[in-house]
Amino acid sequence: MTDPLDTTSDRRPGGCTARIRAQVLDAVRAELAESGHQGLTMEGVATRAGVHRATVYRRRRDVGGLLVDVIDAAGEMDRQPPDTGSLRGDLTALNQEIKESLAVQPSFAVALMAASFHFEQAARAQTQLWRDRYAQCEMLVERAVERGELPAQQTDARSLLIAATAPLYHQLALLRTDPDPQLPRRAAETAVPAAAAGAFSVRQSPQVAAESRPAIPARTPGATR
Amino acid sequence: MTDPLDTTSDRRPGGCTARIRAQVLDAVRAELAESGHQGLTMEGVATRAGVHRATVYRRRRDVGGLLVDVIDAAGEMDRQPPDTGSLRGDLTALNQEIKESLAVQPSFAVALMAASFHFEQAARAQTQLWRDRYAQCEMLVERAVERGELPAQQTDARSLLIAATAPLYHQLALLRTDPDPQLPRRAAETAVPAAAAGAFSVRQSPQVAAESRPAIPARTPGATR
Repeated sequence: MTDPLDTTSDRRPGGCTARIRAQVLDAVRAELAESGHQGLTMEGVATRAGVHRATVYRRRRDVGGLLVDVIDAAGEMDRQPPDTGSLRGDLTALNQEIKESLAVQPSFAVALMAASFHFEQAARAQTQLWRDRYAQCEMLVERAVERGELPAQQTDARSLLIAATAPLYHQLALLRTDPDPQLPRRAAETAVPAAAAGAFSVRQSPQVAAESRPAIPARTPGATR
Repeated sequence: MTDPLDTTSDRRPGGCTARIRAQVLDAVRAELAESGHQGLTMEGVATRAGVHRATVYRRRRDVGGLLVDVIDAAGEMDRQPPDTGSLRGDLTALNQEIKESLAVQPSFAVALMAASFHFEQAARAQTQLWRDRYAQCEMLVERAVERGELPAQQTDARSLLIAATAPLYHQLALLRTDPDPQLPRRAAETAVPAAAAGAFSVRQSPQVAAESRPAIPARTPGATR
């Protein structure tokens, strides 16, 4: 990762700087899961990481920057989407992963979502991370088209993936209801026949296309900008 | 509403107390939308409402309590679910309402979601509000069964409603992407054929039922308890 704020001249690839970065990120994750972003301070992170406070400030200028750092690091992880041999199986496995990350206590993923309501830059990084994750998972849809499970070149992969995974986020992160063991499979099974029936067709009527509006900015009431 | 903390003996139904409550709630909503729950203080609410600080404290003992108050008030509003003559139309109209509440800037609904990550009691009130809202909307599903659009007595109305509305919450409150004008209709059209095909069947296999776990508590990392 290119870090414009990391101007240390003595860094060596995979050496001291990489190790310190890992220590700092581990500390941010631990503090975040334990006490949320409200409890996150540059000093607390330095203490937990066992590094000097100035080292933390050299990486990022504030807590919002540290959050961006952990979100970026999550995006750097090489995650292969599931490959079970069927679209239904792949989406169920994907939902199972999402369920595990949201239902664990304390959930680092939920803490990041909470933080992204408060830090504009964290919200942007989180949005980018999700965009990348959904882009990685588009191959599930491509494989389903190749297998003949979906009509060729008619499916908006991202819309299908959002529809298949949204009930997990809504139920576990927002509604905070029981983690229904059927939910990963049920959400997948809802999306697959709809996709096969063309509900995520990329074709738009001219009227619908004309109604499209520009993207809205991240909505973070009272966010630290 | 029964308010155990409102012990003023001079209240008259619809009179002074009701008016002051309305003023305080309006002030909480305005402050919340403007500066988020981080900017919410008992003093700021009193000033904006034009009442004495003690009046605010008599209603609720802290900011978390004020949030519960506005959430409870939202639940008291008499909202009739849409009745368009078809399940697809009803769900599209419902999603249109949700889209409008989430995409408006600033969004009071999004501010409440953000707050519920931080205040345990607000999270509980928000969960209850959603439960009530989905319960009110179950009549959409009942009417669809009566019209023969769905198989009788086989559809878990709440699961269907969550599946139909989740993409709105996920895309607008969490992913923060463009408010796609097709989304309300598309999310409805995804859920309807799945429901007709029995994806939200209430029947559980014995194995699935055995895997059921108890409800998890509201996850609010670093929440004020």
